[in-house]
Amino acid sequence: MTVRAAVAGASGYAGGELLRLLAVHPEVEIGTLTAHSNAGERLGALQPHLAPLAERVLEPTTAETLAGHDVVFLALPHGQSAAVAEQLGPEVLVVDMGADFRLQDAADWEKFYGSAHAGTWPYGLPELPGARAALAGSKRIAVPGCYPTAVSLALFPAYAAGLVEDEAVIVAASGTSGAGKAPKAHLLGSEVMGSMSPYGVGGAHRHTPEMIQNLSAAAGARVTVSFTPTLAPMPRGILATCSAKAKPGATAESVRAAYEKAFAEEPFVHLLPEGRWPATASVYGSNAVHVQAAHDPASGRVIVISAIDNLTKGTAGGAVQSMNIALGLPEELGLPTIGVAP
Amino acid sequence: MTVRAAVAGASGYAGGELLRLLAVHPEVEIGTLTAHSNAGERLGALQPHLAPLAERVLEPTTAETLAGHDVVFLALPHGQSAAVAEQLGPEVLVVDMGADFRLQDAADWEKFYGSAHAGTWPYGLPELPGARAALAGSKRIAVPGCYPTAVSLALFPAYAAGLVEDEAVIVAASGTSGAGKAPKAHLLGSEVMGSMSPYGVGGAHRHTPEMIQNLSAAAGARVTVSFTPTLAPMPRGILATCSAKAKPGATAESVRAAYEKAFAEEPFVHLLPEGRWPATASVYGSNAVHVQAAHDPASGRVIVISAIDNLTKGTAGGAVQSMNIALGLPEELGLPTIGVAP
Amino acid sequence: MTVRAAVAGASGYAGGELLRLLAVHPEVEIGTLTAHSNAGERLGALQPHLAPLAERVLEPTTAETLAGHDVVFLALPHGQSAAVAEQLGPEVLVVDMGADFRLQDAADWEKFYGSAHAGTWPYGLPELPGARAALAGSKRIAVPGCYPTAVSLALFPAYAAGLVEDEAVIVAASGTSGAGKAPKAHLLGSEVMGSMSPYGVGGAHRHTPEMIQNLSAAAGARVTVSFTPTLAPMPRGILATCSAKAKPGATAESVRAAYEKAFAEEPFVHLLPEGRWPATASVYGSNAVHVQAAHDPASGRVIVISAIDNLTKGTAGGAVQSMNIALGLPEELGLPTIGVAP
Amino acid sequence: MTVRAAVAGASGYAGGELLRLLAVHPEVEIGTLTAHSNAGERLGALQPHLAPLAERVLEPTTAETLAGHDVVFLALPHGQSAAVAEQLGPEVLVVDMGADFRLQDAADWEKFYGSAHAGTWPYGLPELPGARAALAGSKRIAVPGCYPTAVSLALFPAYAAGLVEDEAVIVAASGTSGAGKAPKAHLLGSEVMGSMSPYGVGGAHRHTPEMIQNLSAAAGARVTVSFTPTLAPMPRGILATCSAKAKPGATAESVRAAYEKAFAEEPFVHLLPEGRWPATASVYGSNAVHVQAAHDPASGRVIVISAIDNLTKGTAGGAVQSMNIALGLPEELGLPTIGVAP
Repeated sequence: MTVRAAVAGASGYAGGELLRLLAVHPEVEIGTLTAHSNAGERLGALQPHLAPLAERVLEPTTAETLAGHDVVFLALPHGQSAAVAEQLGPEVLVVDMGADFRLQDAADWEKFYGSAHAGTWPYGLPELPGARAALAGSKRIAVPGCYPTAVSLALFPAYAAGLVEDEAVIVAASGTSGAGKAPKAHLLGSEVMGSMSPYGVGGAHRHTPEMIQNLSAAAGARVTVSFTPTLAPMPRGILATCSAKAKPGATAESVRAAYEKAFAEEPFVHLLPEGRWPATASVYGSNAVHVQAAHDPASGRVIVISAIDNLTKGTAGGAVQSMNIALGLPEELGLPTIGVAP
Repeated sequence: MTVRAAVAGASGYAGGELLRLLAVHPEVEIGTLTAHSNAGERLGALQPHLAPLAERVLEPTTAETLAGHDVVFLALPHGQSAAVAEQLGPEVLVVDMGADFRLQDAADWEKFYGSAHAGTWPYGLPELPGARAALAGSKRIAVPGCYPTAVSLALFPAYAAGLVEDEAVIVAASGTSGAGKAPKAHLLGSEVMGSMSPYGVGGAHRHTPEMIQNLSAAAGARVTVSFTPTLAPMPRGILATCSAKAKPGATAESVRAAYEKAFAEEPFVHLLPEGRWPATASVYGSNAVHVQAAHDPASGRVIVISAIDNLTKGTAGGAVQSMNIALGLPEELGLPTIGVAP
Repeated sequence: MTVRAAVAGASGYAGGELLRLLAVHPEVEIGTLTAHSNAGERLGALQPHLAPLAERVLEPTTAETLAGHDVVFLALPHGQSAAVAEQLGPEVLVVDMGADFRLQDAADWEKFYGSAHAGTWPYGLPELPGARAALAGSKRIAVPGCYPTAVSLALFPAYAAGLVEDEAVIVAASGTSGAGKAPKAHLLGSEVMGSMSPYGVGGAHRHTPEMIQNLSAAAGARVTVSFTPTLAPMPRGILATCSAKAKPGATAESVRAAYEKAFAEEPFVHLLPEGRWPATASVYGSNAVHVQAAHDPASGRVIVISAIDNLTKGTAGGAVQSMNIALGLPEELGLPTIGVAP
Repeated sequence: MTVRAAVAGASGYAGGELLRLLAVHPEVEIGTLTAHSNAGERLGALQPHLAPLAERVLEPTTAETLAGHDVVFLALPHGQSAAVAEQLGPEVLVVDMGADFRLQDAADWEKFYGSAHAGTWPYGLPELPGARAALAGSKRIAVPGCYPTAVSLALFPAYAAGLVEDEAVIVAASGTSGAGKAPKAHLLGSEVMGSMSPYGVGGAHRHTPEMIQNLSAAAGARVTVSFTPTLAPMPRGILATCSAKAKPGATAESVRAAYEKAFAEEPFVHLLPEGRWPATASVYGSNAVHVQAAHDPASGRVIVISAIDNLTKGTAGGAVQSMNIALGLPEELGLPTIGVAP
């Protein structure tokens, strides 16, 4: 089976990463590439690393240019996917890398995004309980946000196993590509190199309700999340430091056992040997998730740390992984599991 | 008054930063510089940025070489200060930049450092309640650790004002100079650039008991700390993201008021305007502390974030600030309050 | 003597660096600060590192707001200084940190900047032969470009001593702050971290005629320059690798002697001991210039490498140094000679 | 055909990069992995990014452990390959990633490496004239140095076409992984971040004679090289800025034509469209070479700039490419041509 794939939003970071992966996917043929303000330009001028695709000309994002593909990836700004998606037929697999269809609660959407809720699609984080069944054969996929990917994979086993209380505290560091390619002064290299800085403090980040949704589902109860994202001086990567109060009876052994069980069969999740902790450099450019968990008796907390590449597993790699499942292809097809290090 | 100052451990990062500051301090004359394995070498070969002192020759660290100074700074590995200090007379001001005399509890020292406790000296964090009185006229000063400096200044106002519960969760990112100048593979530029990684997870970091000591004193009760340090891809800086459950009745206004009150007269602490958050780049090379606090009703937590330069306010600048107080000099003398940015 | 100084263009990188220096200059009182699109804002929102000046409000750049100062610094985009300067009286010291008055040849200006030439002012690179005499007492100063500062100081001694042929090859690496604070996609942190890239290849960079002007003056003959600037993944610093064919008779000894003679009395130029080479980290945030020269018999070339901080010695520090001379103050007043390292 | 490959020196950067590539090579099965001081350890503790190989145990580097493979890669310190290679039978393909067999001139070897010359093997830079024929079917391959790869590919077309004089000036910036994984103080992250610094100035770098060898072969005459390597604050990548005086008659058109002809059929070399220049970020983790050339009439020089990943095309990727040729496999098999960007 060769599937023909279009990418809407090929000039940005998510679209560029997706093309890096699709270009070597053995069952994918890259079709139309579209852009908004860059329509008409050659891809090589915008994504110089994609040399084999350098001569491709970007087309405008319309129903016509996106027609005739088996799969359409939408790498568009939040709130723009719904209008495009409804013009694509039900037989086309639509993979939305934006936020439009991630949330189940319309009120959450309206509070954090300020527009009408477009709906909810099967959620493209296959490692969550029940996710693969929902993705198999689906024609619509909502790719998770990068922070929710890192945080949900870090904490869902502890919640699913009933090991922690329902108040999670999360501090995550992200590389700058998570903020996109639109030029802004605070994202200049001069500003970010040599600097760590927080943003969206106090639950203001739009990824917060998505984390709560995932962790609450795992816990079977409403989980409260204190989420502080920080911008780190690196292009890629998320390190999520997550913790919650241990429930009575939780031990180092029961924590370890829960994570071993949760990830035993996962092709992309690497639970590190005890005593070793993840580093974002180890997953640079790969679809892997590195995780470690510990129980700290002195503070009474379970601490779980995960590392992902925000553009690969956190966005484009997760999208391809979910596409593979939806199409009935081997889940790992075309996806790197080894990072580019050092 | 001109004081003659010796620096034991002039070849390392703390010693180098101290010399950068002392070289422009209007009341200090730099005397003997000592080192261990680098004794006999010229400073310029080891600290090329200290060009005006390049021809200085490092001497061995002995009672003889350190004699004849008004102030002796000890920038030695942990556990080595006590033996040197006891050879220096009671009339000499000894400023220990190591950990030896920071902790009040001998059991804590033994647990985290594995040797006999040498004692407790006046603690060189002048912004803490009562600290200036203990430092004034003192002949012995224990300079705080870099993480405890950032964390204690972030959280003590909330504890002193009774606004938060006694369980603090802290995730801090540090530049690599905090790990010192001894060559280790995991600190190579190839390893740290582009990477965030945790270490000492689960309360294992030696700075944990020092934080607990400071916060418990402010709270008037034993505070529990979950502390996770992470290594960030930058040479300097600490960003400490601290939070604790708000006590009933705490509000955004009461939190703001507590911090305004705590820092109103502080020359080095800059409480940012509401809504703006610290960045380590803003304090690069300065003795300033930038702080912001917020109350998040959704998670029920008070979140406080501070940024310091680990080598300046976190080590050598804090040492000079405390020296100024001990000697009766203006507290800000010779200390930069503006960072080198961008 | 206390001089009252205004800064036009206080919201950019050059203006910010200037304020960092002026804030601790013992003879300067900071007066009006102006900006263009940021007029009306508080400085703290734009330059968070300048905490002691955070409450200062930026005014528009007009003859009225700039009136009543002893010194006016112009940190404006190229081509805008002349119009402002002509409104300032002849009794005011005007220090232009832009390019408008650097070039002697009007044709060069028109070719590289595309507008009418405004004139030529005394050139603010005091280390060049004859420069101090022209600056002393002057009321107008043209601050050199950052690259010409690094390159001219590296090569003028070899040309002045007649040691090299008249074709210089220069490859320089610059930190990103040299490109300014206006947001552009190719200057985003995501783009520049981990990347070296050239620009303005083939003599297209506007600093080329300024280098030729300086080196030709030293040589007493027209010097040809091949100049390739590259963007390096760091916020600050220039490393200029310069070489030229050795003239017959030039030796390692004669090269060394020429540089020792040229810089023997220079307060800011540090000729490194033989065998050691400059690093930009050693001059971070300082007004120092580190230089080394060598003669390579195998290739027949003299190679000279210099390191500066592009914002300090390369812009704002050089401006203050020249101001000191013009006003009859000690040349080193208020200027750091020790970099912030590591 | 599946070939069984051993890697001697699997704990270092070159060995790690090789394993990243071999792990996804469709015709390679990874056999024995060896190390020196790390023998006995699991690979996961030393190369955490190689998670799928984490449980592999490193064996000592001996004839016995390396026996029974079709291909043996040697990623050993310079001077150690010859002793190992002579114990491997003539039927085994030995790919030496060290310097031992690169140079044709024994005197050059002795001058730069200080030991007896071991011999000369077919040179693994397939893009050079005649190289593929020498590699096809060969059982011994000398993989080029990283700098000679970048520089030779940049300049050989100009020399082969007779467009430039025989004195080349080269300034190259390299990421820190080129200096290896052995911990040294000057390679610490604290030292290299934010800093550009030269080393081996004046022709002292061991890669100089290798460049001269390659360029002289292309020119048909002895070429002189002035080579200055600099260390850049990034883990990977080489940007080589190369130039030489244009011969009379050389024009922008003849330069462009020479490069188009040289690289028209090359699968890994991407000659950029006119006016665009390479960036190391575009080839991060890929086997691609990005090149641009220009003629600068003002200085009379031809300037050519190339970008490679020093560990991929500059070491391990070049090794696999040459292995593919030697074994009669498709040259591009298993090698990425798209970098990980941003």
